[in-house]
Amino acid sequence: MLKVLRKQFIWLLVFIPFVIFAQDAPKEAVEVDLPTQIANLTKANDLLRIGLDTFWVLLCGMLVFFMNAGFALVESGFARSKNTVNILAKNFVVFALSTIAFWVIGWGIMFGDGNSFIGTQGLFFVKGVDNSPAVGDAYKGVYSSINWTSIPLTAKFFFQLVFAGTAATIVSGAVAERIKFSSFVVFSLILVAFMYPVTGHWIWGGGFLGSMDFRDFAGSTVVHSVGGWAALAGAIVLGPRLGKYLPNGQLKPIMGHNMTSAALGTLILWLGWFGFNPGSTMAVGDGSAIAHILLTTNIAAATGAIGATIASLILIKKPDISMILNGTLAGLVAITAPCAFVTVESGAIIGLIGGMLVVVSVLFFDKIKIDDPVGATSVHLVNGIWGTLAVGIFYNVDIATAVAGVETKLTSGQQFLVQLEGVLAVGAFTFVVSMIVWYVLKIWGIRVGEAEEIEGLDVGEHGNEAYPDFQIKIHS
Amino acid sequence: MLKVLRKQFIWLLVFIPFVIFAQDAPKEAVEVDLPTQIANLTKANDLLRIGLDTFWVLLCGMLVFFMNAGFALVESGFARSKNTVNILAKNFVVFALSTIAFWVIGWGIMFGDGNSFIGTQGLFFVKGVDNSPAVGDAYKGVYSSINWTSIPLTAKFFFQLVFAGTAATIVSGAVAERIKFSSFVVFSLILVAFMYPVTGHWIWGGGFLGSMDFRDFAGSTVVHSVGGWAALAGAIVLGPRLGKYLPNGQLKPIMGHNMTSAALGTLILWLGWFGFNPGSTMAVGDGSAIAHILLTTNIAAATGAIGATIASLILIKKPDISMILNGTLAGLVAITAPCAFVTVESGAIIGLIGGMLVVVSVLFFDKIKIDDPVGATSVHLVNGIWGTLAVGIFYNVDIATAVAGVETKLTSGQQFLVQLEGVLAVGAFTFVVSMIVWYVLKIWGIRVGEAEEIEGLDVGEHGNEAYPDFQIKIHS
Amino acid sequence: MLKVLRKQFIWLLVFIPFVIFAQDAPKEAVEVDLPTQIANLTKANDLLRIGLDTFWVLLCGMLVFFMNAGFALVESGFARSKNTVNILAKNFVVFALSTIAFWVIGWGIMFGDGNSFIGTQGLFFVKGVDNSPAVGDAYKGVYSSINWTSIPLTAKFFFQLVFAGTAATIVSGAVAERIKFSSFVVFSLILVAFMYPVTGHWIWGGGFLGSMDFRDFAGSTVVHSVGGWAALAGAIVLGPRLGKYLPNGQLKPIMGHNMTSAALGTLILWLGWFGFNPGSTMAVGDGSAIAHILLTTNIAAATGAIGATIASLILIKKPDISMILNGTLAGLVAITAPCAFVTVESGAIIGLIGGMLVVVSVLFFDKIKIDDPVGATSVHLVNGIWGTLAVGIFYNVDIATAVAGVETKLTSGQQFLVQLEGVLAVGAFTFVVSMIVWYVLKIWGIRVGEAEEIEGLDVGEHGNEAYPDFQIKIHS
Repeated sequence: MLKVLRKQFIWLLVFIPFVIFAQDAPKEAVEVDLPTQIANLTKANDLLRIGLDTFWVLLCGMLVFFMNAGFALVESGFARSKNTVNILAKNFVVFALSTIAFWVIGWGIMFGDGNSFIGTQGLFFVKGVDNSPAVGDAYKGVYSSINWTSIPLTAKFFFQLVFAGTAATIVSGAVAERIKFSSFVVFSLILVAFMYPVTGHWIWGGGFLGSMDFRDFAGSTVVHSVGGWAALAGAIVLGPRLGKYLPNGQLKPIMGHNMTSAALGTLILWLGWFGFNPGSTMAVGDGSAIAHILLTTNIAAATGAIGATIASLILIKKPDISMILNGTLAGLVAITAPCAFVTVESGAIIGLIGGMLVVVSVLFFDKIKIDDPVGATSVHLVNGIWGTLAVGIFYNVDIATAVAGVETKLTSGQQFLVQLEGVLAVGAFTFVVSMIVWYVLKIWGIRVGEAEEIEGLDVGEHGNEAYPDFQIKIHS
Repeated sequence: MLKVLRKQFIWLLVFIPFVIFAQDAPKEAVEVDLPTQIANLTKANDLLRIGLDTFWVLLCGMLVFFMNAGFALVESGFARSKNTVNILAKNFVVFALSTIAFWVIGWGIMFGDGNSFIGTQGLFFVKGVDNSPAVGDAYKGVYSSINWTSIPLTAKFFFQLVFAGTAATIVSGAVAERIKFSSFVVFSLILVAFMYPVTGHWIWGGGFLGSMDFRDFAGSTVVHSVGGWAALAGAIVLGPRLGKYLPNGQLKPIMGHNMTSAALGTLILWLGWFGFNPGSTMAVGDGSAIAHILLTTNIAAATGAIGATIASLILIKKPDISMILNGTLAGLVAITAPCAFVTVESGAIIGLIGGMLVVVSVLFFDKIKIDDPVGATSVHLVNGIWGTLAVGIFYNVDIATAVAGVETKLTSGQQFLVQLEGVLAVGAFTFVVSMIVWYVLKIWGIRVGEAEEIEGLDVGEHGNEAYPDFQIKIHS
Repeated sequence: MLKVLRKQFIWLLVFIPFVIFAQDAPKEAVEVDLPTQIANLTKANDLLRIGLDTFWVLLCGMLVFFMNAGFALVESGFARSKNTVNILAKNFVVFALSTIAFWVIGWGIMFGDGNSFIGTQGLFFVKGVDNSPAVGDAYKGVYSSINWTSIPLTAKFFFQLVFAGTAATIVSGAVAERIKFSSFVVFSLILVAFMYPVTGHWIWGGGFLGSMDFRDFAGSTVVHSVGGWAALAGAIVLGPRLGKYLPNGQLKPIMGHNMTSAALGTLILWLGWFGFNPGSTMAVGDGSAIAHILLTTNIAAATGAIGATIASLILIKKPDISMILNGTLAGLVAITAPCAFVTVESGAIIGLIGGMLVVVSVLFFDKIKIDDPVGATSVHLVNGIWGTLAVGIFYNVDIATAVAGVETKLTSGQQFLVQLEGVLAVGAFTFVVSMIVWYVLKIWGIRVGEAEEIEGLDVGEHGNEAYPDFQIKIHS
């Protein structure tokens, strides 16, 4: 650290005569003419804004990164203790591999200039020509779809990287407690390196959905429903856990082993969403946009929890904690697309419906015997779709202009149809490709043996126990 | 995100000729005269400052929001495993409902213009006239008591919202392990919608205590002792847990089930306080005020832990972990009011005394048979009072001027008396109203049945177990 | 909070005529001449930059502070349940005491002006003369080695304080499960008050290693290997835990009790490192430096996890979770010195090697029967050395100039030798002094009795149990 930032220091010297704390600085040092002084000040002001925006985006990226902890805790908490190590290890390795995959190729496919379907320039290692933080006409480079934010390319990449990691993590929960570690790792690599960037390109990278004015501010579709479709495909191909659906048609509930983990994880995710949604501005501006997005995000989480509590009281007769937690997440997923296009009141309604939807959806998937141990499909897929469609329903022109800086040429009905088309296009692509990949992996061997599933994946896959000092009950 | 922030982008265009990274921009683009250039620069500078301050306040608000996780962990960790789900669920639902209640009415009562006792304008949905971030004479609106911070109204609201949520959460710990879920929810709603905003108005909203120069920088009284009084009333009305005080006058210790939770929760709260106290500046300024407040806050937490360790060694003969953790929190509560008015040295003393006080207080409340499972009353009420009075004792004119930007017209003795009056006024109001509300709820049914209390509230109230895979010991 | 920040408010008034939202402000208020306006703007711009930089450094300091939670969870998770309270309590008390020790004397020794070996001015209570945030020639004070960052002294102190606390915490893991609480407290005080500041002075405080162009951007040596040497000395002097190394030469694995804790702790540390490394710029600049450092840090963590997984698959045949977690930390420790001097590609290689090294090192220390329950020596010492040497191997002149703002006069080979000299000098001093201190403490009594070690330190030292509701298995 010693002597570092001499650059910073030299730059400061320009203003030393004025530094208010150095009051003994000599007046005669000021000799530059006024236009030059103004030009210098303008440069300093621009530097400050770029620095501030970069700080903001990096901080929000850190919060989204920390969602890895949230997902790890929610997923392991909702699973059985004998599979805890496996779930935690998956979360680590998947984010690590996502980092590499999105760096090597994913970013280029998603944000590289190309055609309506895929990026074709600056594909590898984020090494395309780029003069960020220059914006608009001043921008010269191959990542022009993301030239609207005046921060360094490295900062843009970090923020998008943690988003990509989130999509992969979503899958983890739905396939938990029975998938082979190696198969999951391979699927995640394909998801982050190819599938996620392709549909991401369609919407955020200059592709055909973006051109149609499909709106997904922070990723209800780009991130959550993509993860959700991949998760659904995985849950179908893998089949349910042993003993979940009994031969007599009855359902045997399999309880998560640690509600403290699940609740803490949900709160970490809620916090992370304050980076996820407001950070998607990728600029601080005058603060009003990020503050509005924070409010819509927070209120949707709150009403999501309330909606799920009400639905749980009605349908299950008690305020089930897993429903309250998933309801919170449902509200957050649902508000992710519309957070910058709707009023706070609309945010409250979107979250409330999301919270109710998740309870119905969890019961529905159990009815049709698709076994998703943590409810990832209900949270991320069902509410990713709901949130994306909600943009069409609750779109507010004033908010969209002031907060998201966009204007719509579409009527409300047209917007709804565009949103629906986006949902269908992304869903069809991701679900079909996921099914293919999962089936190919099935040939290799996608599911652990029956004995290992009963004993738990921790010992079988990792040679570890999560809680060796504790007496554990034997569940079949 | 695509094409968003075009507003941001257009605004940038003004400066494109100067953008330092776009060195090929044509010089001849500069045609505006110097006064206009200076006016533009001034606007840009103001925008930056507003953006920076908003970012700061939102970040601090996020940290305070995350204190929900800290409270959930501390409270559940200090309670028995059979009531864990109930405590976690309460924390979620209470913050969700607080969000709604403070939005619908609480904010208006607290910060709306009105009389010395209550806000009467702009009551509902934060919808009063307001031209924030304009400040001082330029401010036109109905929330004039909070017009000193130049950030958007939405940001002010978010920051105050998470404070209100904190007050409600404090109650949760003291009434844990025996209260009905529904009764607690109703009390919390009343607290956040009415009680907290009323006394808050007295101090921060333009009411009579603020006018008397009562000083509570970040809420030792406004937040913590209000929560503490409500908690004390609840603990009294509910009565102790079954088996805590034996017929022979003996005390049966009931141990918390998870010290890992409690310790992690305390560290999360310590982190959250770095938002709570420094964030109450609601502006970054030149950084010296927020840095000073951070230091006084951190050192009081440290000496709180040390003070409790010493007191624990003296009174209990061993460094009891629950005392160390509560001592840390005690130091933090105590420094909350004086953090911007005192030196770092004074902060160290305030925290040290707070940490010792909490040990004595926990033993005292057990002596008089008021059963507070997590020590919330000792932490938040006793130290909320201590911290508020400490302002009068340790007030440093230079610090107060430089850090808090206030000047006192009072002598040290006068200041102490004003602080005492504030403590008494707020305490009398909150305790009396709380007792009334708790007694009314008692008619409805405030406490779970004896069988349910023994079995645990998790199964009775929620139909869940927190740790179904683990063998749990039976405690009566 | 009421009426606070009037200073802030008055300062704002200067610009009120221009405040863009106060459009009705009278034009005729503008009467100052252009040079004065420009001077005012320059001051405002400087204030903003200082405020922004302070905010950045404080935020990063908060993240590093939160690493206390990470260390507490990793250490306790990797230890047995019967010693959990002891480890958690140690973490609290040590950070509390570090705060005091570094404030009273440590800062002065480290950053006070003095000679090549030790600071001699402004020793106590951070009370030396200082006109921060003035920098360079404008700086007048006794902490001139850290005058390159333009933030208030209080902010510099807070950031360095949390670093000092980290060094002390590292020791805790290696001596866990057998050390007396009181002995550990005394050692930590000596470490933070004297040992850490002395070697810190050599490198960051104006001492001889810094003058030789020894490079350690964020503390692979200053923080991690110092903690690691002290830990190694402690583990040697204490001897192994009972039953770890059997008389027949066999090793009995002692499993950590809570992998959820360990994994969450590791993710918290990963997050904390985003403050640790990028924050060591102590300035935001134009954002490009902090973004680059964030990327090198994140990729080294990722490849550390991958490297450890690969090494674990080869050497242990399964992806052991403790290896994956320690591999992540190893990558982070290794990138700490070079993060601002190397490319992202180099960061990936440094982390990969770090992750592999940690697996080999853990096996090696067990071979030579040095018992380090959590692998602290392998993570912090071995990789602290590796990272410091990696600066010499992967040094990139362009990156170093652009990101760290330093120029090297050394060839690559020379730089490597300087790094090696630094490693040896710091290692010799810290290891020798640590051995002396540990041996002196041994006279007093450094290790708990055999019965207490078997029963667990929680009951013996604290009178607590961490998980009283759970049935715990008896391990010898």
